[in-house]
Amino acid sequence: MAHKTRLLNGGKNLVRNLVLGRSVSTSSKRKTTLLKQLLSSPQLAFLMEAHSGLSARIVEEAGFHGIWGSGLSISAQLGVRDSNEASWTQVLEVAEFMADATHIPILLDADTGFGNFNNARRLVRKLEDRGIAGCCIEDKCFPKTNSLLDGRQQPLADIQEFTLKIKACKDHQRDPDFCVVARVEAFIAGWGLQEALTRAEAYRNAGADAILIHSKKSDPSDIEAFMSQWGNKCPVMIVPTKYFKTPTEHFKELGISTVIWANHNLRASVSAMQNTCHQIMSEQSLVNIESKVASITEIFRLQQDHELRAAENLYLPKK
Amino acid sequence: MAHKTRLLNGGKNLVRNLVLGRSVSTSSKRKTTLLKQLLSSPQLAFLMEAHSGLSARIVEEAGFHGIWGSGLSISAQLGVRDSNEASWTQVLEVAEFMADATHIPILLDADTGFGNFNNARRLVRKLEDRGIAGCCIEDKCFPKTNSLLDGRQQPLADIQEFTLKIKACKDHQRDPDFCVVARVEAFIAGWGLQEALTRAEAYRNAGADAILIHSKKSDPSDIEAFMSQWGNKCPVMIVPTKYFKTPTEHFKELGISTVIWANHNLRASVSAMQNTCHQIMSEQSLVNIESKVASITEIFRLQQDHELRAAENLYLPKK
Amino acid sequence: MAHKTRLLNGGKNLVRNLVLGRSVSTSSKRKTTLLKQLLSSPQLAFLMEAHSGLSARIVEEAGFHGIWGSGLSISAQLGVRDSNEASWTQVLEVAEFMADATHIPILLDADTGFGNFNNARRLVRKLEDRGIAGCCIEDKCFPKTNSLLDGRQQPLADIQEFTLKIKACKDHQRDPDFCVVARVEAFIAGWGLQEALTRAEAYRNAGADAILIHSKKSDPSDIEAFMSQWGNKCPVMIVPTKYFKTPTEHFKELGISTVIWANHNLRASVSAMQNTCHQIMSEQSLVNIESKVASITEIFRLQQDHELRAAENLYLPKK
Amino acid sequence: MAHKTRLLNGGKNLVRNLVLGRSVSTSSKRKTTLLKQLLSSPQLAFLMEAHSGLSARIVEEAGFHGIWGSGLSISAQLGVRDSNEASWTQVLEVAEFMADATHIPILLDADTGFGNFNNARRLVRKLEDRGIAGCCIEDKCFPKTNSLLDGRQQPLADIQEFTLKIKACKDHQRDPDFCVVARVEAFIAGWGLQEALTRAEAYRNAGADAILIHSKKSDPSDIEAFMSQWGNKCPVMIVPTKYFKTPTEHFKELGISTVIWANHNLRASVSAMQNTCHQIMSEQSLVNIESKVASITEIFRLQQDHELRAAENLYLPKK
Repeated sequence: MAHKTRLLNGGKNLVRNLVLGRSVSTSSKRKTTLLKQLLSSPQLAFLMEAHSGLSARIVEEAGFHGIWGSGLSISAQLGVRDSNEASWTQVLEVAEFMADATHIPILLDADTGFGNFNNARRLVRKLEDRGIAGCCIEDKCFPKTNSLLDGRQQPLADIQEFTLKIKACKDHQRDPDFCVVARVEAFIAGWGLQEALTRAEAYRNAGADAILIHSKKSDPSDIEAFMSQWGNKCPVMIVPTKYFKTPTEHFKELGISTVIWANHNLRASVSAMQNTCHQIMSEQSLVNIESKVASITEIFRLQQDHELRAAENLYLPKK
Repeated sequence: MAHKTRLLNGGKNLVRNLVLGRSVSTSSKRKTTLLKQLLSSPQLAFLMEAHSGLSARIVEEAGFHGIWGSGLSISAQLGVRDSNEASWTQVLEVAEFMADATHIPILLDADTGFGNFNNARRLVRKLEDRGIAGCCIEDKCFPKTNSLLDGRQQPLADIQEFTLKIKACKDHQRDPDFCVVARVEAFIAGWGLQEALTRAEAYRNAGADAILIHSKKSDPSDIEAFMSQWGNKCPVMIVPTKYFKTPTEHFKELGISTVIWANHNLRASVSAMQNTCHQIMSEQSLVNIESKVASITEIFRLQQDHELRAAENLYLPKK
Repeated sequence: MAHKTRLLNGGKNLVRNLVLGRSVSTSSKRKTTLLKQLLSSPQLAFLMEAHSGLSARIVEEAGFHGIWGSGLSISAQLGVRDSNEASWTQVLEVAEFMADATHIPILLDADTGFGNFNNARRLVRKLEDRGIAGCCIEDKCFPKTNSLLDGRQQPLADIQEFTLKIKACKDHQRDPDFCVVARVEAFIAGWGLQEALTRAEAYRNAGADAILIHSKKSDPSDIEAFMSQWGNKCPVMIVPTKYFKTPTEHFKELGISTVIWANHNLRASVSAMQNTCHQIMSEQSLVNIESKVASITEIFRLQQDHELRAAENLYLPKK
Repeated sequence: MAHKTRLLNGGKNLVRNLVLGRSVSTSSKRKTTLLKQLLSSPQLAFLMEAHSGLSARIVEEAGFHGIWGSGLSISAQLGVRDSNEASWTQVLEVAEFMADATHIPILLDADTGFGNFNNARRLVRKLEDRGIAGCCIEDKCFPKTNSLLDGRQQPLADIQEFTLKIKACKDHQRDPDFCVVARVEAFIAGWGLQEALTRAEAYRNAGADAILIHSKKSDPSDIEAFMSQWGNKCPVMIVPTKYFKTPTEHFKELGISTVIWANHNLRASVSAMQNTCHQIMSEQSLVNIESKVASITEIFRLQQDHELRAAENLYLPKK
C-alpha cells in the first residue's frame, strides 16, 4: 500500500517535473554565462540563425549551442525591410518569444542599438529582463541599411561615438556575463584593414566581449587580413554568408572564435513555402503535399503540447 | 528639349508610382469587398494559410486570392501553444504585418473572439483599422483548445451566448463588407449533425457571412452530412486538414464555397528548417546548403527592397 | 398593441443607438477633415494636451475641438524621458487609445518622425489606420532632445533632408485630409529669424499643412518677428508654454491659426497626485481625500460604463 | 597635481554612480523580498495606487513602501473599461513602465489572471521578468467585471478551479519570494462569511501569500466578520474604497496586514485635469493656470533628466 502510494507520488512528481521544467535544465548556468563561455572558448563555436520562437526551438533541437537572432531574418519574417521599419520593441518581442522557447543562449543582432548610447543602454536592460544572453551592435547609423545590399551608402558611425555607446552598454548591464559584441563594418563600407583594426581595438578597449568582423567578399581575404593583424586580443566572430565556400577548417586555423550561420533557416523556409504554395495553387489539392511537410502532430510536439497536457492534469479540476 | 523633359518626368513618375504603389493596385475594391465576393461567389475558392508578413506575401505571389491567418500557425510560429497563450494584441500585430505585406484579403482565425461579446466586437474594430478583411470566430470557450488535439475536452459555447457574440460583431463593424465567419465545432466536440445544423442556422440568422463547418474525421462524411441538409442557406467553408485525400472536385459537388489550406506553409517551413539545421549542424558548412535555399537576393526582393531604393532616390538628399 | 411594439422597438433602438454610437456622431466628417478645417479656419483655434485615453476624453468633454498628443506628456506619463526612450510603436499605442476614446481630431507630436523619411512615411500610414488626424514633425535629429531643456545641444536636421521627409509623408498619406505639420526649431536651436523663415517656406513648399513655429522665450518676440515676415502663406501654430503671459488676443492679431496648450493636463495631474500622495502618506487615511477627488462613479462614467451595460443587455444571454 | 586628478576622478565617479544608479540602491534586497516582508510584517503596511510610470514614481517619492497597480486605474487611464478590454500584454507593458520608474515593489492587480491556470502561470513568469514583485488574482470569471459596479452579475470562479490556478502560479514562479495574493470576492458576489472563509482557506492551502478580502459595504462589517474567524492564518489585505471612513487604527486592531489605497491617484488626476481643462477652455489663457500646476522643470525632474544629462557627459563625444 505504502509502496503503491510512493509509486503514485513518484508518477505525480514526474509529471510535476515535466510541467515545472525541473528535469529539463541540464545546466544550472545562466544563458549569459553560457554565451560568454561559448565566445571565449578556444574551440570554434557556431551560432545558427532563428527569427521566431518556432525556428529558435528547431535550432536548439538540432543540437546547436547558441542562436543568432538575425536582424535581416526577423525583419524579413515580419514582412518589412532590414532598415529599422519594425520598432525596437517589436524586435524585442520577437526575441522574447525566442528566449521563451529555448534553453540555449541567444545573441540578438541589435543593429545600431536603435539610436544613440541612451537607446542602446536601455535596450541592454530590456534584453537582460527577457533572458537574451547578449547583443551585437554595429558601427553604422540609425536607421540602418543591410550590409549585403549592393549600391547603398553604408556610412559608418563616428568611432568615438560608437566606442562610447559600447561603453554605455557595458556599464549598464546588471548581469556581468551579458555579452556585448561590437560589429565592425569598415570592410562593408569600403574602408580598409587599418580602419577595421583601429575600430576593433577601440571597441575592445571600451569593453566589447567580442568583435564581429563583417565582410561581403566572396572569399575570406578580408577576414584573413584582419586576423593576421589582430593578435587574438579578444574573440572574433564572422558571418560567412558571402564567402560560404571557405572550408570551416580554415576559420579554425585563422583563430576565429565563432561562426554565425546567419540567415539559412529563413531562406530554407522561403523556398519551402514558395514551393508548397505553388504546388497547392496548381494542383488544388493537398494529396501530394501531406507527405512532404511536417505532420500536425509534429507541430503539436514542437509547441510542447505534452507539457500543457500534463499541466492540465495537475491544474484543471477533474470533471 | 521639351520632349526630353517629358521623358524625364515620365521616368520620375514611374519611380513615384512604384514608391506610392499607384500602379500596383489592380483593383480599387476594398479588401473586405474582395473577401465578401470570394465567399459568396458560386465558384469554389481557396484560402492559403500564412502566419507572418513574409508567408503572407508568398501566398499572394503564388496567385491565391485570399489568406487564412491560422491561429495554430501563428501561435506555433511565435513558439507558444494554440491555447491563447499569445495575447489578442500580439495576434493582432502579426495580422497587421500580414496585411501590410499584401493586397489580397485576409480572413483571421480569431479563435473564440478572445473572450465574450465585448472582446469580440472590440477585436472587429481593431481588425478593420488594420486592413484585415474578416475574422472567423468559433463556438468554444476561452481559452481555446486546438480542435485537432486528441483526448482533450472541447466544450462548446452556449449557443445563445455565441449567437449574440456573432450579432455583436456584425452590429459593430463599420465597413459593411467586413466578414464574420461562424465556425461550428459541433462535430469536433462529439455532437452530431443536428447540433451542427441548429448552431449553423442560429449563427446565420445572427448575421454570419459564412459558416465554417469543422471536422477532424479522415473522410468527408461530416461535411457531406451537413451539406446535404444545409440547403445552401449561406456560404460554407471547410478545412480539409484531416480529410485531405478527398478530391477537390467532390467539394465542388457538395456546394462548398471555400476551402482553407490551413497550415501547410507552416508545416513546410518546419520540415525545411529542421532539415537545414540538421545538415548544417552535421556538416559544419554551408557549401551544400546554398543551392537549396532561397538566395539573399530573393529575400531582399521579397522585402521589396526595390521600392525602398526608389524611395531613397526621391526622398534622400543627394550627397 | 402595434403601438406598444413600436414603442418597445423604439426603446430597443435607443439602446442600440447608444451601443453602436449612431446617435453620438454629431458630424459625419472624418477626423482628418475636422483637423484640416480647424487649422485652415480664419478663427483662432485651440488644441488641448492629452497623454492617455482618459485625459483625451476629458479634453473632449471640456469642449475643445482638437487634441495635442504631446510627446513630452506621453513620455512623462510612461515614466521615461522625452528622448525617444519609448519606441515609436509604444507611442502609437498610446495615440490609439486616445483616438478610441474620443471623437475630436488628434494631432500627434511625432518628434522627428522617429528616424528618416522612411520611418516617417511608415508612421503616417499607421496613424491613418488608427484614426489619428495628423502628425507634427520637427526638424531635429533622432533621438530628439526636448526643446525646453536648457543647456542641451539642439542640432537641427539638414534642411533638404527634412523637406524631403515632409514630402515623403505627404506623398504617402492615403486620406487627402491627413495633416502633416512641420515644426520649425530654428529659434530653439539658437538660429535667427532668417533661418526660421527659410525653413518654414521650404517645408510649406514640400506640402506641410501648417507650420509650428516654436520658441522658448518668455515673451512672444520670436513669434512676432516670424509672423511679421511670414505673410500668412499657410497656417501657423504656436506653443506658448514659456510665453504664457501673452494675451491670447495678441495671437489673434498676429494671425496665428492655432494655439496649443501643450502640457497642462499632465502638469495638473502631477500636482494633484503629489498632493494626494503626501496627504494619504501623512494622514494614513482617506477621510479628508474622498471629497477632493473624482468619485468612483465618475470614473465609471468616464469609462462609458453605461454603454457596456446597454450592450450587455443586448448581447449577453438572459439568465 | 595628483590631488587634482583624484578630485576629478572623484567627480567622474560621482557622475558614474548617478548614471549607473549605484548610490541609489538603499537596499540590496529584491523587490519580491521587500513585498513579501511588507505583507508578512506584523506592522500595518500601506500600498498606494499607481497606473503609469509617472504616478508610480510619485508614489515612491511620497515615501510609500509599495505600489498597487490597480486594474481599474490602469484600464481607466488607457481609456477603456475594467472588463479586460485592454489585453494582458498591454497591462503588462504599463506594469513594466511602472517597475522601470521605481525601486519599491509593485503588487499588480491581475484580475482573474486573464484566463485559466495556464494564462495565469504564464503571466507570473512575465511579471517576474519585468521586476513586478507580485500579483493579485481574484476568484471571478474572465472577462471580469469591476467589483464596485452596482447591478452587475459577479459570478465567482469554481473554488477548485481557482485553487488550482493559485497553485499553478505558485508552482511556476522562479523567485521564491514572488507573491501571489488571492482575492476573495465572496462578499462582493453576495455570498456570506462562510463562503469567504472556505475560499480563503482553500487559497491559503494552495500557497497564496496573502488573502485580499474585498467588500463594497460602506462599513467594515464584512472585514470584521472575516477577521474574527480567520485566526491570522496568513496575511490579510483590504481595499477600503467604500468604507473609507473607518479609522485606520481599527484595521490595526483587526489584525489586517496591508491596506490598499486603491484608486486615489487616478481620481485626483481626473479632478485636476477636468478643472484645468474647463478653466483653460473658458479663459482661453494659461495665466491663471501656471501657478496651479507642476512646473515644466518639475516634469523634467520627475523624468530624471539629470541622470540623462550626466550620462550624456559620459557617453556623448565632446564636440
